[in-house]
Amino acid sequence: MKIGIVDTTFSRIDMGGIAIDELKNYAGVRYIRRTVPGIKDIPVEAKKLIEEERCDIVLTLGWVGKAEKDALSYIALSVGKIMAELMTNKHIIDVTVHEDEAEDERKLLEIAENRIRKHVRNAVDMIRNPERLVREAGKGKRQGFEDIGPILR
Amino acid sequence: MKIGIVDTTFSRIDMGGIAIDELKNYAGVRYIRRTVPGIKDIPVEAKKLIEEERCDIVLTLGWVGKAEKDALSYIALSVGKIMAELMTNKHIIDVTVHEDEAEDERKLLEIAENRIRKHVRNAVDMIRNPERLVREAGKGKRQGFEDIGPILR
Amino acid sequence: MKIGIVDTTFSRIDMGGIAIDELKNYAGVRYIRRTVPGIKDIPVEAKKLIEEERCDIVLTLGWVGKAEKDALSYIALSVGKIMAELMTNKHIIDVTVHEDEAEDERKLLEIAENRIRKHVRNAVDMIRNPERLVREAGKGKRQGFEDIGPILR
Amino acid sequence: MKIGIVDTTFSRIDMGGIAIDELKNYAGVRYIRRTVPGIKDIPVEAKKLIEEERCDIVLTLGWVGKAEKDALSYIALSVGKIMAELMTNKHIIDVTVHEDEAEDERKLLEIAENRIRKHVRNAVDMIRNPERLVREAGKGKRQGFEDIGPILR
Amino acid sequence: MKIGIVDTTFSRIDMGGIAIDELKNYAGVRYIRRTVPGIKDIPVEAKKLIEEERCDIVLTLGWVGKAEKDALSYIALSVGKIMAELMTNKHIIDVTVHEDEAEDERKLLEIAENRIRKHVRNAVDMIRNPERLVREAGKGKRQGFEDIGPILR
Repeated sequence: MKIGIVDTTFSRIDMGGIAIDELKNYAGVRYIRRTVPGIKDIPVEAKKLIEEERCDIVLTLGWVGKAEKDALSYIALSVGKIMAELMTNKHIIDVTVHEDEAEDERKLLEIAENRIRKHVRNAVDMIRNPERLVREAGKGKRQGFEDIGPILR
Repeated sequence: MKIGIVDTTFSRIDMGGIAIDELKNYAGVRYIRRTVPGIKDIPVEAKKLIEEERCDIVLTLGWVGKAEKDALSYIALSVGKIMAELMTNKHIIDVTVHEDEAEDERKLLEIAENRIRKHVRNAVDMIRNPERLVREAGKGKRQGFEDIGPILR
Repeated sequence: MKIGIVDTTFSRIDMGGIAIDELKNYAGVRYIRRTVPGIKDIPVEAKKLIEEERCDIVLTLGWVGKAEKDALSYIALSVGKIMAELMTNKHIIDVTVHEDEAEDERKLLEIAENRIRKHVRNAVDMIRNPERLVREAGKGKRQGFEDIGPILR
Repeated sequence: MKIGIVDTTFSRIDMGGIAIDELKNYAGVRYIRRTVPGIKDIPVEAKKLIEEERCDIVLTLGWVGKAEKDALSYIALSVGKIMAELMTNKHIIDVTVHEDEAEDERKLLEIAENRIRKHVRNAVDMIRNPERLVREAGKGKRQGFEDIGPILR
Repeated sequence: MKIGIVDTTFSRIDMGGIAIDELKNYAGVRYIRRTVPGIKDIPVEAKKLIEEERCDIVLTLGWVGKAEKDALSYIALSVGKIMAELMTNKHIIDVTVHEDEAEDERKLLEIAENRIRKHVRNAVDMIRNPERLVREAGKGKRQGFEDIGPILR
């Protein structure tokens, strides 16, 4: 299994580094890492990793600023990520941290780390152990925060 | 007839489970279920079920949070679902529950269950009995709530 | 000439029925009608009518609710309709009624009927008599309401 | 050189007529004109002119109303125009007049005429004399209004 | 290595000229420059430079006005840029200056110059020295302003 990792120089946290650290827990998962300037550069890099480097899945790690135009770029990233998936029939797991999710830098770091590590596990399991995700369907899983849990009947 | 079902671990309700329960009312409809992390991962999984698993139609079951960025993800999901349909010439029936549709968790569960069961019937009939939908054209059908009914002349 | 008609069970008016009634005024225009649940299901059905049923043009008849998420679905429908056209090089004439166009149900019915009948004529003429549209270029034509007319020099 | 012109019956000004009048100033430029109902019908007509009528470039002439849903249609038009260009590798120069650009009808006419004539020149030069555009790079050119001019160092 | 440069006549700054000046610092990088009217004309020109002129990467230089419709055009540009990348598997580095980023013309010029020069370096390094970007991953790099820097643990 080979996983692609794309992060940005715009991010204020070494998101790719955290992802690679988490990957050490998985035997036999190879990775290839690429860094681009910002989130709008992510979709094509993810597609290149799938088509030119034969990755089975890609983890994209983006950081979104607080400005109005950053929200617009986030729409473009989201549509682009999905188009890249539809053109390749491979999953691209998008991990985005929005700078306005927390006031405090320490808290932002905590959110990013939690979100990245959980999504690394999601990405690996989507290839190796998709049944784990089926078992967790509807369980109110959250990345970046504590799971909220299911609504109980 | 084979139907694909895609739900998420983000959802707070086991949406895929409800869909499968409803499917028991239909003889000879096989299904294949997949679970992905969140709504932006849905379109490519639906396309894979059509192209790699030969599903005739796919039911996608999403849960949208209350935040602004969740609304942006919903646009991306909607455009992606339609692109996946246009690339395959197959229908993907999108069942989305928006967390702000009800204040009360019990009510949310009720909306989700009603919407999923009705759309399972829509999906099966779109393949087996499309004339039923033609007969109900303009009848103000609603999923998740009571039908509102047609405007009478 | 063969025209496709797609409407929805969500609509509160039998939009397809009105379109078919109007089509009786045109000799030799065959039609094929399909009904889908809601507006996001329209684009692929229109594409299928063009590619699988050899329609020359398709009339899509949608009904948009008042909620915020209905506006988001309308964007997805609009982008999807255009993508379906670009993939087939055929026109898809989109007739949408927005529930907030009138307070009164009777008025809404009037808008829908007027808009559908005028666009049926547009669709037929785009295939049979495109010169009529050229003659009406810039004339401030409106569907659903009275024409507003051109700005006079 | 052959230029395509697409306008609408929705427009309150004969935009195609103005474009054709301006084209008389250019020897040897042939044109083909098509009229569609509204702006969402423009992208596929532009693509058809390129692919079926072998136009080198297309000028699309749209009129956008004041309502919220008109803004949504404008996004769809804009994305569709760009997709049509990407699918054909030809330019489609979009000339849109927004009804809220001026209160006064006479002023609106003035804006439309100025914008159309300038963009006809742009379209012709993009094929015949692209160096003129390079010379005007960063010069704060405006269509519909006076040029605003460059920021001087 | 060959880089494409696309700028606009709408811009109030000779953005292409600044990019070419910066390129002089790089031996052996050839360039080809094109100018289009406005930002919605950029994506297809970038794609043409990649496909018809064999550029390895393209730098697009846009200027966005203050009006609401300019924001809508920016979404269209962003989605179009990403689609052009996905269709070619090449990067298009988008350098956009938003007129509302500064009140003062001198400040706007400073932002534009800083942003263009830094992104020229990014574009060259993405082809020649991608390891530089990996080393700067998560470093809070900004173009147009001072780098904000990483969040320290």
